[in-house]
Amino acid sequence: MGRRTVAVLGAGLIGQSWSALFAAYGHDVIVWDPADDWTPGFHAFVDRALRQIRALESGDILEGTIRCTPTIEEAVASASWVQENAPESVPLKHELYARVEAAIGPETIIASSTSSLTWSVLSEPLALKERFVTAHPFNPPHLMPLVEIFAPDARTRDAAHRFFTGLERRPVFLEKEAVGHIANRLASALWREAVHIVDQGIASVADVDAALVHGPGLRWSVQGAHMAYHLGGGPGGLDAYLRHLGPSQVRRWATLGTPDLTEALCRRLVQGIEDEAAGRSVSDLESERDAALMRILRAHRGAGQ
Amino acid sequence: MGRRTVAVLGAGLIGQSWSALFAAYGHDVIVWDPADDWTPGFHAFVDRALRQIRALESGDILEGTIRCTPTIEEAVASASWVQENAPESVPLKHELYARVEAAIGPETIIASSTSSLTWSVLSEPLALKERFVTAHPFNPPHLMPLVEIFAPDARTRDAAHRFFTGLERRPVFLEKEAVGHIANRLASALWREAVHIVDQGIASVADVDAALVHGPGLRWSVQGAHMAYHLGGGPGGLDAYLRHLGPSQVRRWATLGTPDLTEALCRRLVQGIEDEAAGRSVSDLESERDAALMRILRAHRGAGQ
Repeated sequence: MGRRTVAVLGAGLIGQSWSALFAAYGHDVIVWDPADDWTPGFHAFVDRALRQIRALESGDILEGTIRCTPTIEEAVASASWVQENAPESVPLKHELYARVEAAIGPETIIASSTSSLTWSVLSEPLALKERFVTAHPFNPPHLMPLVEIFAPDARTRDAAHRFFTGLERRPVFLEKEAVGHIANRLASALWREAVHIVDQGIASVADVDAALVHGPGLRWSVQGAHMAYHLGGGPGGLDAYLRHLGPSQVRRWATLGTPDLTEALCRRLVQGIEDEAAGRSVSDLESERDAALMRILRAHRGAGQ
Repeated sequence: MGRRTVAVLGAGLIGQSWSALFAAYGHDVIVWDPADDWTPGFHAFVDRALRQIRALESGDILEGTIRCTPTIEEAVASASWVQENAPESVPLKHELYARVEAAIGPETIIASSTSSLTWSVLSEPLALKERFVTAHPFNPPHLMPLVEIFAPDARTRDAAHRFFTGLERRPVFLEKEAVGHIANRLASALWREAVHIVDQGIASVADVDAALVHGPGLRWSVQGAHMAYHLGGGPGGLDAYLRHLGPSQVRRWATLGTPDLTEALCRRLVQGIEDEAAGRSVSDLESERDAALMRILRAHRGAGQ
């Protein structure tokens, strides 16, 4: 895939991270954000993210340019890909798309990073529905490989596949749209039980997190949940597992909780996370997360995964 | 912690893996299993697992001995730690504990690897309740750090902490016993939604697994679920997250599914996992899993985590 011009609309956490990734893989990036005086913070983030990507890529990348612009129209006019990262408000996104549609070229794709809205709702007022795609990354997008994609149009799906694999991301295509796509539904399902375990006094916030990180989380970074039960079935695989242990899973499901997020429980969760953070700021914890992600990504790449 | 004699009762998948780990960290291991002709398969597994641990430890480990024995009494007589890995049957385990209690020394700890039974149920007929502990590993125990522990007696908890940290495991102590401890409850909660997503036709088995591995699974191998939402709240952390997005999580929870594991759905899951396995046997997939786990564990160790 050649060098192209990519517009980034909305330069919050996700837009900043996308901008660094797009530029790192040789695209020329034009960024727009409605906030006042947003560019110093943006450039500081992008510089750090670019250093991280360079460290992962052993330095041999041909970077594109990054330019900030005050209008949506200027951002999208020459772009062949538009990545929208506006707040999760349907009217706000619709208003933005109207301006984008009026200003883009005839082949440009509009992608939304939305995490909680669906293609059908977002595309509703668009004239160019066939060129609209939801492409949800997992934070931080410049390090995490996953991009969850939904687009009914086959050509647009192909274009999204080329675009994101060209950025060394791992696109996963939904066959049917769903609120929360796949990853956030799984994360939400797990967190519900994680909160329940704290609520029931079974373990602390820090210990629930430790059990996840040193147990299933570690294993899920290598093989998925379905595959884990396939291996849990012995030589007979998932078929044997379902026959022998399917009923025990159904019984287990019935014992899982749906906590009530009361003020008292929220206070307990916040106190628990403060104990786990042990004085580290959110920014410290982000740096630790990124460093650990980079170690793992480097280890996998070394093995050619 | 010095060299000690450890008895392993039950040499299935978990018992084999424990045996290799205990020996790799310098203990003398005595193994008992009721099956006929179990020792050739056992030794083949242990040899492979020991090679993996040696590769992780850069070779400088002082291995203990491993001996197979035909009777429970001979296995436990000289042991200071007994790790029981019998099938998940309460009467069977109770019968076994009666023989163990009659044969062990006055300081010996009895640990059960049980995944689905609780301390209260298992300890019920024991005379030596204070020396009984549930210590549930995550498969494969010779690679996965997590051990989930419940023991009401403080001295036994301390002994379990010393024993498992001496094996470079990460013990997590439950404050209150729970069926499925922590990790399997989280895994079961996530899998319920993973099955629901396939059932609803949102994505294939392979794509759900890919989304997990390249998204939340990867991130959970670095930071837990509570911590992820702490970082998701921006500078205000989990407190800000709960205030602004807590209600959206509660709404999301209400949309998560509880699939009915019908014969048709089970066929679909099995077909899906066959597509994902693409001809690889369960044994091939185990080897891939272990190789990837070793890459990650080595990457973390290199950074001193």
